[in-house]
Amino acid sequence: MNGSVGIVKTEYYTFAYPPNELILENGETLGPITLAYETYGNLNEDRSNAILILHALSGDAHAAGYHEDADKPGWWNDSIGPGKAFDTDKYFVICSNVIGGCKGSTGPSSINPQAEKPYALDFPLITIKDMVKAQRYLIDYLGIEKLLCVAGGSMGGMQVLEWMVTYPEMIKSAIPIATAAKHSPQQIALSEVGRQAIMADPNWNNGEYYGLELPAKGLSVARMVGHITYMSDKSMEEKFGRQRNDEKGTAKFTADFEVEGYLHYRGNSFVKRFDANSYLYITKAMDILDISAGKPLHRAFDGIEAKVMVIAFKSDWLYPIYQSLEIAKACKRAGLDTTYCEIESTYGHDAFLLEVESETHLIKHFLKKVYNGYEVTDEQELQYSQA
Amino acid sequence: MNGSVGIVKTEYYTFAYPPNELILENGETLGPITLAYETYGNLNEDRSNAILILHALSGDAHAAGYHEDADKPGWWNDSIGPGKAFDTDKYFVICSNVIGGCKGSTGPSSINPQAEKPYALDFPLITIKDMVKAQRYLIDYLGIEKLLCVAGGSMGGMQVLEWMVTYPEMIKSAIPIATAAKHSPQQIALSEVGRQAIMADPNWNNGEYYGLELPAKGLSVARMVGHITYMSDKSMEEKFGRQRNDEKGTAKFTADFEVEGYLHYRGNSFVKRFDANSYLYITKAMDILDISAGKPLHRAFDGIEAKVMVIAFKSDWLYPIYQSLEIAKACKRAGLDTTYCEIESTYGHDAFLLEVESETHLIKHFLKKVYNGYEVTDEQELQYSQA
Repeated sequence: MNGSVGIVKTEYYTFAYPPNELILENGETLGPITLAYETYGNLNEDRSNAILILHALSGDAHAAGYHEDADKPGWWNDSIGPGKAFDTDKYFVICSNVIGGCKGSTGPSSINPQAEKPYALDFPLITIKDMVKAQRYLIDYLGIEKLLCVAGGSMGGMQVLEWMVTYPEMIKSAIPIATAAKHSPQQIALSEVGRQAIMADPNWNNGEYYGLELPAKGLSVARMVGHITYMSDKSMEEKFGRQRNDEKGTAKFTADFEVEGYLHYRGNSFVKRFDANSYLYITKAMDILDISAGKPLHRAFDGIEAKVMVIAFKSDWLYPIYQSLEIAKACKRAGLDTTYCEIESTYGHDAFLLEVESETHLIKHFLKKVYNGYEVTDEQELQYSQA
Repeated sequence: MNGSVGIVKTEYYTFAYPPNELILENGETLGPITLAYETYGNLNEDRSNAILILHALSGDAHAAGYHEDADKPGWWNDSIGPGKAFDTDKYFVICSNVIGGCKGSTGPSSINPQAEKPYALDFPLITIKDMVKAQRYLIDYLGIEKLLCVAGGSMGGMQVLEWMVTYPEMIKSAIPIATAAKHSPQQIALSEVGRQAIMADPNWNNGEYYGLELPAKGLSVARMVGHITYMSDKSMEEKFGRQRNDEKGTAKFTADFEVEGYLHYRGNSFVKRFDANSYLYITKAMDILDISAGKPLHRAFDGIEAKVMVIAFKSDWLYPIYQSLEIAKACKRAGLDTTYCEIESTYGHDAFLLEVESETHLIKHFLKKVYNGYEVTDEQELQYSQA
């Protein structure tokens, strides 16, 4: 898949000191705020080639390339780099960790300057809009007045939609992928069992576990539920079938099947890299989001001039295609230059990370048109029918 | 929906005393065994009108009528009674709690006679076949040589299939509903997160919690996962939408949405009526089941003379229709008189309890034909196309 952006380093930008704190959607204030971010490629002279990549629930600022001494590249390395979908030979690509997270941006595990200890549940309830407002400070700091594109999958797609409605004058185009304008009750329910699993763990201790035993078992169960929803019935069948687990112990209720061993592995590795309170705050932000804000969805997009490409995957049952179709239809109805692309895939929700070839094809073309100022609709719709 | 069987009482039959214990599929022995059961209607003179109803994961022997002083009827009351699908004016209906359960039949919460305390994890790993073998003792005891029908949904359907392959000479017909001949990796994964949630609860204490604090939080999370899988995206949308929960407290991460309150309620009420160890044993039995036993499925049904009606529901994503279709195709290929009925429903897996009218129509007709000795296929297929 072409070149790599090579060795990269996460950077940090701190802003919104008192009294200039960020006023959150719920009226509370937060500050100072640090955002962890990475950039790849070079900003051109007229600062017109900047793309903001927005990450999903468990993602971070490290979207591409390698950290010094690391084996694994960033989470969207297949799509960001020289010659890739987000071509760093042409574009200046930015990715920032969201507020509420635990990967360098201010979140519940950060030190609360008022209390000189981690915020824990004193961290305010944040929204997707609050995440986007914080990102806007970073974009200003980088000297960018207008982003060529905002793009992301899953919760990243929610941020894309929030960028569209909050700062429409600051974006030239948007690519929401495998996402929703609001969570259905099924999505809320799936979030909630994850939260309940965490809060059922006595180590969670009402959020006050920093420096103590972590609520690892609860967070692990939450992650296992997540992984089931990220795959499809078919992709699980193809990957695991009913293969038995060779490493099964002799005790009762150990992992008999490979799929169980996989879930355990995913659960256990997640607790080493993710903060349980961040899981609560971020999933809640996703559940609360409602881009339509009580109006018909297309009204939320009125007056936006950005070109939009909505991408969905057929086997994604966590963010079913009807939710992407709703977004695309509302954009069209609001008069936006909109393309809707439905990709055949058995990967389920994970497809937004795995269907590299189809996505690359669509995104490259879309960005080229946007960058060069053409209409995107016609040729893109042709792409769709091939997909 | 016609009459009620009225006030009923659970009865108990104890058998398989040492040295005549039940030899389980894994080679271990279990005994003595008590089965809790109920019967409705009257056995006719030639004992040819007996129907065995098989319950799902959290079901019990109380399928119809009311217990003295109870507000709620048995779990399949809409389908069992005078004039109903399983018409107690015509048929003698039996329902027994499975072994491994916690509703009167021998299970992990029963006293282990060797240790004079509850079995807990000393209870052997049982299978669906073991459940069926225990039921056979009861059927013998009731003096029935051949059952007119075995019928059940979900895990009840698994027992139906196991009756077909284990005691084909003892059944005249079979109705497996919303079930599978084996669990897919997705179904195993969903079982496993439930088990992991239970075992993550420190009160679970390796199964030794009887007389102590119960692993209520873990079991509650397991049940919440279950309830999400029993509904469909659409039925959740219709029932809850994004309605806010009026009883939300002021603390963070309480139930904002009605769907969350519903899950909490379902989780909390389940822990009052179900044993966490039974949940482990029974879900494991479901995961292990493979009716095909490594051969093509139709070979498992070779030589069976029972008439079969397979019922599936379109919106059931926990037991997707392709699994029922596999069963029906294999039965047909093995030469069985087979009908496959796919019912339009938005209720998801719960449909087998809720789509009373469609099921009643199909089951009544099927039983009448079987009872009177006609072929069932032709007219039943007509029913299907109407469904």
